[in-house]
Amino acid sequence: MKFIAEINVMPLKALLDPQGKAVTTSMTNLGLAEIENVRIGKHITLEINADSKEIASAKVEEACKKLLCNQIMEFFEFELKEA
Amino acid sequence: MKFIAEINVMPLKALLDPQGKAVTTSMTNLGLAEIENVRIGKHITLEINADSKEIASAKVEEACKKLLCNQIMEFFEFELKEA
Repeated sequence: MKFIAEINVMPLKALLDPQGKAVTTSMTNLGLAEIENVRIGKHITLEINADSKEIASAKVEEACKKLLCNQIMEFFEFELKEA
Repeated sequence: MKFIAEINVMPLKALLDPQGKAVTTSMTNLGLAEIENVRIGKHITLEINADSKEIASAKVEEACKKLLCNQIMEFFEFELKEA
């Protein structure tokens, strides 16, 4: 079966996010002062072939831990759906 | 009222995504050959003060078009929920 994973990798909440901070400031300069607390991370989509949703989920978690997410500075969350 | 927006900015499907392509290759090298078609974009969360969900939605769309998303190469989608 083929599954599609939607993964979000975001900076840890305890850490400063300089890119998000810069964008928050730019929002004010653009006349969008209502917008605050911008945080910017990565959104990753991928396809995975696996016999069951459990196996697919384990593989995606492995991929996140090994390659996609630097767990010292980031956390990840993902959703799996059948393609 | 305060709303939280979850925005995804992804490379257009018609365009090559070199970063995603590189990660797909790395997955095979890491023993995760089941994973294919990786695409990498941005995930942005922000808080917005607005009187109604409609106004908040219009503001977030304006922010995406003006700053967060380069519509020549990317598309965006977002969800709004009350904080």
